[in-house]
Amino acid sequence: MSAAPHSASPSSATSGAPADVNELVPAVWPSGATRDESGVLTLGGISATDLRARFGTPLWVLDEDEVRAQARRARAAFTAAAAAHGVTARIYYAGKAFLSIEVARWVTEEGLSLDVCTGGELAVALAAGVDPARLGFHGNNKSELELRAALDAGVGTIVIDSFVEIARLAELTAARPTPARVMIRVNSGVHAETHDFLATAHEDQKFGFTLTDAVTAAARVREAPGLELVGLHGHIGSQIFGTAGFVESAARLVDLHAALSADGPLPLLNLGGGFGIAYTVRDDPTPIEDLARGIVDAVAAESAAHGIPMPDLAFEPGRSIVGRAGVTLYSVGTTKPVTLDEGRARLYVSVDGGMSDNARPALYGAEYSVRLASRTSEAAPALVRVVGKHCESGDIVVDADHLPGDVAPGDLLAVPATGAYCFSLASTYNYVPRPPVVALRGGEARVIVRGETVDDLLSRDAGYTGPVRALVTPAPESPMEGTA
Amino acid sequence: MSAAPHSASPSSATSGAPADVNELVPAVWPSGATRDESGVLTLGGISATDLRARFGTPLWVLDEDEVRAQARRARAAFTAAAAAHGVTARIYYAGKAFLSIEVARWVTEEGLSLDVCTGGELAVALAAGVDPARLGFHGNNKSELELRAALDAGVGTIVIDSFVEIARLAELTAARPTPARVMIRVNSGVHAETHDFLATAHEDQKFGFTLTDAVTAAARVREAPGLELVGLHGHIGSQIFGTAGFVESAARLVDLHAALSADGPLPLLNLGGGFGIAYTVRDDPTPIEDLARGIVDAVAAESAAHGIPMPDLAFEPGRSIVGRAGVTLYSVGTTKPVTLDEGRARLYVSVDGGMSDNARPALYGAEYSVRLASRTSEAAPALVRVVGKHCESGDIVVDADHLPGDVAPGDLLAVPATGAYCFSLASTYNYVPRPPVVALRGGEARVIVRGETVDDLLSRDAGYTGPVRALVTPAPESPMEGTA
Repeated sequence: MSAAPHSASPSSATSGAPADVNELVPAVWPSGATRDESGVLTLGGISATDLRARFGTPLWVLDEDEVRAQARRARAAFTAAAAAHGVTARIYYAGKAFLSIEVARWVTEEGLSLDVCTGGELAVALAAGVDPARLGFHGNNKSELELRAALDAGVGTIVIDSFVEIARLAELTAARPTPARVMIRVNSGVHAETHDFLATAHEDQKFGFTLTDAVTAAARVREAPGLELVGLHGHIGSQIFGTAGFVESAARLVDLHAALSADGPLPLLNLGGGFGIAYTVRDDPTPIEDLARGIVDAVAAESAAHGIPMPDLAFEPGRSIVGRAGVTLYSVGTTKPVTLDEGRARLYVSVDGGMSDNARPALYGAEYSVRLASRTSEAAPALVRVVGKHCESGDIVVDADHLPGDVAPGDLLAVPATGAYCFSLASTYNYVPRPPVVALRGGEARVIVRGETVDDLLSRDAGYTGPVRALVTPAPESPMEGTA
Repeated sequence: MSAAPHSASPSSATSGAPADVNELVPAVWPSGATRDESGVLTLGGISATDLRARFGTPLWVLDEDEVRAQARRARAAFTAAAAAHGVTARIYYAGKAFLSIEVARWVTEEGLSLDVCTGGELAVALAAGVDPARLGFHGNNKSELELRAALDAGVGTIVIDSFVEIARLAELTAARPTPARVMIRVNSGVHAETHDFLATAHEDQKFGFTLTDAVTAAARVREAPGLELVGLHGHIGSQIFGTAGFVESAARLVDLHAALSADGPLPLLNLGGGFGIAYTVRDDPTPIEDLARGIVDAVAAESAAHGIPMPDLAFEPGRSIVGRAGVTLYSVGTTKPVTLDEGRARLYVSVDGGMSDNARPALYGAEYSVRLASRTSEAAPALVRVVGKHCESGDIVVDADHLPGDVAPGDLLAVPATGAYCFSLASTYNYVPRPPVVALRGGEARVIVRGETVDDLLSRDAGYTGPVRALVTPAPESPMEGTA
């Protein structure tokens, strides 16, 4: 493969322990995270040990207030930056980061629109009652059935990715009374400085039209009576920390936007998402307000340079809305010291989940941090690797961090910043059921996605003839709470 | 992360096209794969276009005859190699490669035992009616509940992975009438030449005891009245092509086995699995018969050198049993040419599945091959990259192969050698439902795991109040066939 995963940050395996291994560094935790007087981690006013007692582990916790706050923050940042130039900015939450009925409601209640990229994600949005006009529909390979469903539902915008799709959509819309609003996905050629898999606008990848092909694409769309071209769309990648890539891409898109504006109206420019978050203390993403101002000002300057009115803007944050709101709780099952070179030691700490509930370390070499949640400890810090229970050596949750050296079976661990792309990418590898998702708000916890059972896992097996004896006793309120 | 994925084989992106892009190279296809007189791929006597018409795409096809044949072949190879030295060899199918009720029955009917590594996999084995005495139970972090379930069921062997587990198991078995048969997982320190994630016996990973610690572990097990130590267990990794690593590891294990035999009976030595298969024509794995003879002869020689009776042996193939039996069928949705450096071109071919049904390219840089299944073509070969429909640039199914240059939307593609670790590692990323698994035997096709629906995907969502309108019309016999 041309795209070899790498770590974005230097490994901490060789760095020193933090001054306080019990500290909750604000950048990677939801705002409400703290420790109570006994040292137990509390999230949204609820202690992590209470959450374990009620819902079991592993457990995906999502702080609703944090999601809503980040949604408001992103909206305010881009709206203010756009208003300074007399245009509007619409914020689409990128559903692929974490989508459930509840989350779709939270972000739309906070004034965001919603991006979906498959018929399945569209179904979730519709089940959540999201106004279809506020939906954007993405994807490099939308099926005819998916496009029909989107048109029938009346989605606000369809982002076209290929010439094949233009022809498909032109045919599907020819006999419809109202034209479908579409955008053209443009591959600006900017190579974002992030993991290769997450960089989506260099030339050798599947998404969008080249700058040259986009001109032809726009002409074809404008020839189709059932299609209304409303603008261009660009997205340079994910988990990007600086503004340079966004600004460069915006400049190229405005250049194209100006050229295409000469042939007809083109009111909108969607610059995608990709705004990075901190997974560990070594990550230092640019604040969203600064990103917003930098990108929007660049569009304004480029528009002025081309002598065109500045278009209204749209953006698509996902990770930056939900990432920090998520914390995964695990129970420690076993510990095992391993001697490394030069006498250094690494403590392997095995938890009751793993690559099934967080595939990102295995997929991208993603780094996370970990804290002891059930207590604090004055024990000397130990270099740890938190690993899962799967039968695979790449089953790593936290490659390298420090925990109190007395961490032991039964302890509760918390891994922060797991709100984005953990639930989304989850598998049931080794028939490990997926955990429940519990939302926190106003000191209350409630299941928004129930945990999976072994019976669930067997339910599609044609040889399955009925409930198997439960091999794992569910916690009192999990997995069945909230299924009514 | 210390473990950076890499490609085991050189990329074909720069190599020439094969002489015949319609050819089905035997090494990577199930034995029954051929083309009918019209050029359509047939598997197990059934045409791929018929399979698509009946079950839709994407579709996981599993050739039952091939699974059974490979199970018999592995059993025969190791049994013969062992018999030459007067000992026995037991073959455990490594369920993590692909486990369903049917597959558990096939392999056990062919005389194999079965490895499971979680309570969920144990449940599948029990639901399949597998004799618990033929089960081996693995895992670096088995919970107390899982261990209780295994003991209650009467599993044949539990493979102990840590000192924590010895204590846990000693306590759980203290009051039971029959001692539990256990083995000790040993990390021999041999670093298999494979992907870092798949190498499990170098020192810095989570599995097993070091050779030194294993001596202490054996003593503790022997002190526990509820435990019966039956042998040592080693496993050096996965997708290994040569015998050298196995032989070296076997030598170290026999050395330890000899030392521990001095203190009591130790009848068994389990050398694990990891036998590689061909994913592309560039892969050249050692035939299982040669591997079996090489490894078993090495154990015999080492035993003789130590002056001990040769132990009975056990092995754990997974991938080599099911890998080649699996073929994934996809329909082409879009194609898009991209110009590379120096005027070369790559055709992006988007299919209706992707990293959700095959995570291995994204996880390990794994390479696959692809053939046009619905027809042959004399069109000039094109360098293609087969990509999925997910909103991610790493969503690659086949990184580089050649297809006839006239490949077009509606064509049916077949990706061979997908029997292992595709179904197992599947996700529902972007709410893409998991495909059905169809088994082929005697010219008949039947669903052994039904396909997922969008309603299935929403069934655990607490906000879900009933069936959503089907956004994807299921094929006539999918996904509901076989659920009775």
